[in-house]
Amino acid sequence: MPAITLLTDYGLADTYVGQLKGAILSTCPAAKLIDLTHVVPPQDVRTGAFLLWTAAEAFPPGSIHLAIVDPGVGTSRRAVAAQSARGDVFVGPDNGLLAPALDRLGGPTCVVELTNSRFWRPAVSLTFHGRDIFGPVAGYLAQGVPLAQLGSLLQRLERPFVIPMPRRAPDEIEGEILHVDGFGTLVTNIPGDRVAAAFMVGLKGQRILGRQGAPFESVPRGSPLAILGSQGLLEIAVRDGNAAAVFGARVGDGVTARPPVD
Amino acid sequence: MPAITLLTDYGLADTYVGQLKGAILSTCPAAKLIDLTHVVPPQDVRTGAFLLWTAAEAFPPGSIHLAIVDPGVGTSRRAVAAQSARGDVFVGPDNGLLAPALDRLGGPTCVVELTNSRFWRPAVSLTFHGRDIFGPVAGYLAQGVPLAQLGSLLQRLERPFVIPMPRRAPDEIEGEILHVDGFGTLVTNIPGDRVAAAFMVGLKGQRILGRQGAPFESVPRGSPLAILGSQGLLEIAVRDGNAAAVFGARVGDGVTARPPVD
Amino acid sequence: MPAITLLTDYGLADTYVGQLKGAILSTCPAAKLIDLTHVVPPQDVRTGAFLLWTAAEAFPPGSIHLAIVDPGVGTSRRAVAAQSARGDVFVGPDNGLLAPALDRLGGPTCVVELTNSRFWRPAVSLTFHGRDIFGPVAGYLAQGVPLAQLGSLLQRLERPFVIPMPRRAPDEIEGEILHVDGFGTLVTNIPGDRVAAAFMVGLKGQRILGRQGAPFESVPRGSPLAILGSQGLLEIAVRDGNAAAVFGARVGDGVTARPPVD
Repeated sequence: MPAITLLTDYGLADTYVGQLKGAILSTCPAAKLIDLTHVVPPQDVRTGAFLLWTAAEAFPPGSIHLAIVDPGVGTSRRAVAAQSARGDVFVGPDNGLLAPALDRLGGPTCVVELTNSRFWRPAVSLTFHGRDIFGPVAGYLAQGVPLAQLGSLLQRLERPFVIPMPRRAPDEIEGEILHVDGFGTLVTNIPGDRVAAAFMVGLKGQRILGRQGAPFESVPRGSPLAILGSQGLLEIAVRDGNAAAVFGARVGDGVTARPPVD
Repeated sequence: MPAITLLTDYGLADTYVGQLKGAILSTCPAAKLIDLTHVVPPQDVRTGAFLLWTAAEAFPPGSIHLAIVDPGVGTSRRAVAAQSARGDVFVGPDNGLLAPALDRLGGPTCVVELTNSRFWRPAVSLTFHGRDIFGPVAGYLAQGVPLAQLGSLLQRLERPFVIPMPRRAPDEIEGEILHVDGFGTLVTNIPGDRVAAAFMVGLKGQRILGRQGAPFESVPRGSPLAILGSQGLLEIAVRDGNAAAVFGARVGDGVTARPPVD
Repeated sequence: MPAITLLTDYGLADTYVGQLKGAILSTCPAAKLIDLTHVVPPQDVRTGAFLLWTAAEAFPPGSIHLAIVDPGVGTSRRAVAAQSARGDVFVGPDNGLLAPALDRLGGPTCVVELTNSRFWRPAVSLTFHGRDIFGPVAGYLAQGVPLAQLGSLLQRLERPFVIPMPRRAPDEIEGEILHVDGFGTLVTNIPGDRVAAAFMVGLKGQRILGRQGAPFESVPRGSPLAILGSQGLLEIAVRDGNAAAVFGARVGDGVTARPPVD
């Protein structure tokens, strides 16, 4: 039975995550549930999309990824399930949350609007489709219910935003900060294979030495370093420190990368 | 094998939750463990009781709910296990924490004081009955040990508090805020079936439009709306915002609901 | 199949824990994963070592404990797996994180440097050895791969620090605060079996009554009490309060214990 991963903005102080899991177990008592994160900033679909994009690839192909950041719950936004070319199935609102992760795993090959209420909780609330629709559907998928039975086929997912791509300028690559992680490391949108073994990063008027394969101990404690991060993207970190605090940097701030000038 | 849910005030920064799970696995290696929440405010039995009450119903009947918010640990308060009419079993201190959830699932049909130390950890500490008594007992219950073997029958649970009920006044219902969730939504004690399709809510001198089936997008961003929430209770939310912050509202604040006056 | 426990400083806001679990499931789809904590202060190896030390014993012998607090990731620090005399296996960086817990379970009987890349993720990043090395290795261990196949034997673990031991002075025991837990309780390094049934604790110039078997209700609300804690160590708590706040106490502060003088 495939694992079901869970990514939401439900937080940890309420029992919404618990109720969601109860709903899954009610349709699939043997479900294997794995938390990705439940502290996506409330209703921040873009951050949720980025975080899902970071995580799905690490799971065995064929896993089920249930993701809910859903400010439009109860409105006309669609509820969907979509299969990737690699075989993974994503379940959630059709608001841009799922598309980047699907693209990373080969793109969606089948998208279904969740219209078949036979696979929902009997009573559906206005505000908690995780417990009442998405969770039960994920449980049925783990039980082996075919995707196509869950509703009607859709031609495509909504794509109200994209993860921004870096631009190539004459002498440099112009990117931006996609994410600030819990260590304060700045994850950019510049792929590591787009920069040389040694490179120079510009951030907020400062220049930071970059090395593809350098460990943190190649710079003194408290010094910044640009490295190839675990997502395959250029990251800016501070050894034993917090780069976001040191640079006063935030998501969306511009970052440049170029070969170092002697 | 039934799932075991876990609700505590142990927090996430220590390993108390981990030790509790280790104790369960020591008596039931195949136990299926589901976290409800572990960030109940420390020793806040009432909030714990409310949160448990919100969550238990979503799980398959027959699940085991282990709940520990236990300021009286090591004192004369009883340790108990109780079965609901629906078949679920609750395990925890007899301090009011379990009673509301049991009532919601049909009321307790069998209550046992945990006096049979054969089902405990060999060494019982003064302060960590989760690891030393409740966890092992929950594991044995999941293994199929009958409730009655765990100790001596009790006539009733302690009920040192109740979840307050709303009052019916001549023209309105007078309730209060039971809970502020992680989105800042205000959960009241007014059942949704006690108000009309359209209604008017009063909170801290302000009036808020309420509609049973209205989605958030029926009001502008930043505007408040009273809706029927996922627990079946009237809730006050702010579209894409935080109602607790907007209204400066807290648990216990009064809320009224009445038919709107033209 | 043994459970795999997880202790990291990855935090809960990113998907690093999720990716780690994905990596484990990729080598062991049926793995049973139990979180100890993921909010060890970033790169704080000593706190991680203390927390792992508190938790491992509660799990069934033979469990696998995966612990990652790894400021030296990508440097020359070793990656290791080590078996305890009790049969548990610990996996993580060889930076002092694992040694205290291993010692508590009888000491390491076999230590292996993780050099056999056949048990790693095909592509190993510079900064995320949890996902790329430690996680897959833990999965293979749970699958039954013998420890010795994972790499080359080591004579010993690195021990760059120890959990400090109390000193015996003429009239008293001189210890210190090892940990402040989420309730604000002060966990000292003074073993409970080193003090009398009734004793007197000194902390920051104040004297606190201690009793081996006293419940919290033996003192008034808001009053301090020294007790024998759940780890077998003397702890200083405040009834229905936060001892760290009341005493302004921190890790490393000195604590004395002596028989009370009439």
